[in-house]
Amino acid sequence: MDIQIIGFGVIGQGFVEVLLRKERFLKQRYGLDLKVVSISDITGTAVEGEGIDLRRALEVMRQTRGIINYPGARKMTGVEAIEAFEADAVLEVTPSNIQTGEPGLTHMLKAMGQGKHLVTSNKGPLALRFRALSDAAKKNGVEFGFEASVGGAMPIINLAKVNLAGDEILAIEGILNGTTNFVLSRMAKEESPLEIVLKEAREMGIAEADPSYDIEGIDTAAKLVILANALMGIDATYRDVKTQGIRKVTPEAVKLAKEDGYAIKLIGEVRNSHLEVAPRLVPVDHPLNVDGILNVALLQTDVAGDITVVGKGAGAIETNSAILSDIISIALKRGLG
Amino acid sequence: MDIQIIGFGVIGQGFVEVLLRKERFLKQRYGLDLKVVSISDITGTAVEGEGIDLRRALEVMRQTRGIINYPGARKMTGVEAIEAFEADAVLEVTPSNIQTGEPGLTHMLKAMGQGKHLVTSNKGPLALRFRALSDAAKKNGVEFGFEASVGGAMPIINLAKVNLAGDEILAIEGILNGTTNFVLSRMAKEESPLEIVLKEAREMGIAEADPSYDIEGIDTAAKLVILANALMGIDATYRDVKTQGIRKVTPEAVKLAKEDGYAIKLIGEVRNSHLEVAPRLVPVDHPLNVDGILNVALLQTDVAGDITVVGKGAGAIETNSAILSDIISIALKRGLG
Repeated sequence: MDIQIIGFGVIGQGFVEVLLRKERFLKQRYGLDLKVVSISDITGTAVEGEGIDLRRALEVMRQTRGIINYPGARKMTGVEAIEAFEADAVLEVTPSNIQTGEPGLTHMLKAMGQGKHLVTSNKGPLALRFRALSDAAKKNGVEFGFEASVGGAMPIINLAKVNLAGDEILAIEGILNGTTNFVLSRMAKEESPLEIVLKEAREMGIAEADPSYDIEGIDTAAKLVILANALMGIDATYRDVKTQGIRKVTPEAVKLAKEDGYAIKLIGEVRNSHLEVAPRLVPVDHPLNVDGILNVALLQTDVAGDITVVGKGAGAIETNSAILSDIISIALKRGLG
Repeated sequence: MDIQIIGFGVIGQGFVEVLLRKERFLKQRYGLDLKVVSISDITGTAVEGEGIDLRRALEVMRQTRGIINYPGARKMTGVEAIEAFEADAVLEVTPSNIQTGEPGLTHMLKAMGQGKHLVTSNKGPLALRFRALSDAAKKNGVEFGFEASVGGAMPIINLAKVNLAGDEILAIEGILNGTTNFVLSRMAKEESPLEIVLKEAREMGIAEADPSYDIEGIDTAAKLVILANALMGIDATYRDVKTQGIRKVTPEAVKLAKEDGYAIKLIGEVRNSHLEVAPRLVPVDHPLNVDGILNVALLQTDVAGDITVVGKGAGAIETNSAILSDIISIALKRGLG
C-alpha cells in the first residue's frame, strides 16, 4: 500500500515513528507493506518511488524543521504532490483550521478526486464540510477514514460503525477536549482558579500559548459536529452548536460541586438534533467522570443501551493508533498489501 | 443470509425480538435480509425453508416454553438440525457449561465442520477449548464471532481487533461480571454484608438462585481466558486462572476503602501471561470504577496507551447488540445479503 503524507508536524512525524516501530508487526499480522512515497510540508515535498527513507526524514525534520532538506526534495506543494504521484492513499495531517478548513479541505477533495483513499486527523475541514467530504468519497468510490479527528486514540467513529453496527445511536455525550479536562481536574484537586491552572498547563505543554479554542469550547464543538454527522446522520456544521466554554467556572463552584459528589466537566452533547457544549455537573461515580487529559464518550443506543469509551484525547503517538486502524481497515477492505 | 438458531432461551428469544425490531434497519443500512431457517431447543426443532415466523415462535415459547409446539416442529436435536438443513451461519446460544462446554462445544464444531459461520454468546466452550475452536474456524474457512461471550453489550473483542488493529494488547484489566459488581456497589452504598445484598440481588433477578460461579470469580475467570486467547494469543483455559472471589469481602473493608477514596471491585487481569481474578482496590476516579451491573475493560496497548470501555454486561436485548454486530460484520465480509 503506497501512501502520501501531507503535513509533517507532530502527528505526521508520529505516524512515521509508529510505522518504523510497527513495520514487522504490520507485515506479519496483515501482510501489509506500507510504503510512504512522498511527504509534503509547507517547505516542499520529498519523494521516492521506492519509498522514503523514514529514519532520514525524521532526522531532517529534527535538524532543519523542513522536509525540503531531505535529499532531492522539491519545491512542490501538497496539492501538486497529490496530482503528480501515484499512491493508494493520502494521509492528511496538516494543522487544523476551523475558520476555512484550509489547506486540509483542498487536499482532501483533491486526493479523493484522484481516486485516492483518504485518512486524516484534521478536524477543521470535517467540522465545516462533512457532507461535501463524505459525498466526494462516495462519488469517487474511495474510503474516508477520520477516526483520529475526534478523541485522539479514543475509538469512537469506528466503534459506532463496526462494533455497534446493529444499533442506532440515539444521543452522544462526551468530554472531547483534553486541555479543558486537565484544567477542570486540576481546579478540583488544587482548589486554584482557572488562570493559575492554565498557566501550569501551558508550562507542561498541555495547553497551547493561546488556548481560547479549547477553553471557549470551540474545539469540543468541532468534534461534536463530526460525531453528529458521522454517527447520527445530522447535517450540521460547528456553527450550529450552542457553545459555552469554561472561562466562567470558578474554584468555588468546583469546590461546592465536589462536596456534593459531583465534578464539573465540559460536556459536548447531541440529542434530538440539538448540539450543545457547556460545563455540566457529573456524579463522581458516573462513567463520564474521567480525569486529567483523558477523553470520554458515552453513546446512547437502542439495543446495547449506554456504551462508554475512554482514551487519550491527544498525543503524537497515541493519535496514530487511530490513523493506523483506519489504514489497516482500508487495506483489508480493498485488498491492498 | 440464512441462520440457524441453536438454543432458544433468554438470549435466543432476545435475538428474535431484536430481529423483528430491526428488520427494516438491517435491510436499509446493509442490504441485509436475515432469514431464520430453523430454531432448535431441548424439546426439538422448528424449521421453515421460507424462514420461521418469528412472532409465532416467540408466542409459542411464551405459552408453552418449548419450540416443539411450533407448527410442524420435529423431534430433532440441534446437532441433527445443523446437519440436516442448509444455512450460512449458526447462532449458538445454549446455556453455558464451564465444566464440559457441552452441548455448545459439539454444536460449534459441527457447525464449522459443515462450513457454516458461527456466532455465539456461549462462553463455556471458549473458556475450555478456545484454540480448538479457532483452529476449526481457520481449517473450515468460516468466520467465528464471539463478541457476546464477554461483557454482554460491552464491545471488547472486535474493539481490540478492529479499532486497535495497529496496537498490541499488553495487558487487560476489567470488571467482567455484573452480579458481583452490583453486589460490591450495593455493599458500599448501604454498608450491608454480602449475604443481605445477595438476597436483594436474587429478588431483583440480578443474581441466580445459586450465584457461586459469579461470587467465586469463576465466571470472570472464564471471560478473562477468552480475552487472553483472543486478544493476546495466550493459549490458556479457565483452569489456568488464579481465582479468588468476593465471598470474604466484609462491609468493614468496603467502608474503610471508601473512606480512603477507593472502591473494592472484582478485577480480572492478564499481564505477562499471568491470569488472575481477585478483589482489588480501585481509586474512585479511576476509569475501572464503574457502578452497579456495568462491566468495564481497560486495555493497555503499545500505541494508543490505555483504552477503557464500559457497557451493560448482560441483558437479553443488550447482549444481542454484540451478536448483531458479529452477524453484520460476517455478512459484509462474505458478501451475504
